[in-house]
Amino acid sequence: MPDRRDARPGEVAIALPEAFDAGIYFIGRIRTPFTSLAACPKNVGQSKAVGRIELDTRYASGLKDLALFSHLFLLYWMDHARRDLVQQVPKHLNAPRGTFALRSPVRPNPIALAVVELIGVEASALTVRSIDCLDGTPLIDIKPYFASVDSVPSAKRP
Amino acid sequence: MPDRRDARPGEVAIALPEAFDAGIYFIGRIRTPFTSLAACPKNVGQSKAVGRIELDTRYASGLKDLALFSHLFLLYWMDHARRDLVQQVPKHLNAPRGTFALRSPVRPNPIALAVVELIGVEASALTVRSIDCLDGTPLIDIKPYFASVDSVPSAKRP
Repeated sequence: MPDRRDARPGEVAIALPEAFDAGIYFIGRIRTPFTSLAACPKNVGQSKAVGRIELDTRYASGLKDLALFSHLFLLYWMDHARRDLVQQVPKHLNAPRGTFALRSPVRPNPIALAVVELIGVEASALTVRSIDCLDGTPLIDIKPYFASVDSVPSAKRP
Repeated sequence: MPDRRDARPGEVAIALPEAFDAGIYFIGRIRTPFTSLAACPKNVGQSKAVGRIELDTRYASGLKDLALFSHLFLLYWMDHARRDLVQQVPKHLNAPRGTFALRSPVRPNPIALAVVELIGVEASALTVRSIDCLDGTPLIDIKPYFASVDSVPSAKRP
């Protein structure tokens, strides 16, 4: 995913709150073939890349039984992204769109979400497909994917 | 979702890091019919409840164009959950399972994720179905749902 950058014409910046409300631990790192933001696919739909999730060893036993699932959600922290834009002008739209109607890394809490296929589980690492983020991106959560509630094939988008 | 609580036999607690790595803003609150943890459905699959997302007005213009989407991801903060259990014994399993193989609110970063249907958009609020969290739960992100990458009907689980 691309990094951000100066605001573009038509984008709307706000004043963020003066203090945070809660704290995040980085629980590991995502290793990918993408070593620069320019090299990252624009979205996971364009990526068949295999990534390696390196979990901090203190959390390793949290992976027990993960191999029972075929797909996972990864949540990760877009630590290069600015957080104060509430309307953005994506290059493919050429008009302002609300941040909450975009999957851009630029958002008040720069948490990205990806559905990935689980390929392998090691003691404190996973291999997954497909992942589109920058090599070294901080991981913040792994969740099992439940088709019964997470899969909505009929969901509509513009 | 249930709150947590003392560790149960078979559960594994760890020492968390001494400091956080990043900070979260609460961007709004989720209003639901569930005013106690005991009243919350165990999971969103059991809920047809309508909820109201009340966004902090500073972020209101971030909702522009959201009505183009039929479904959303909500990310919210389970502020009642302990964060140090890496294996848990859910009541329906009666055996320890890794935290990352569970959707329990108990996890190092207590972020919950739900796919909801968007019913209505107001100036700084949304109406959605289905939502299972406690009334007043802090909201941390809203994202559009993209069936092309987020829907995996064939995903396997135990």
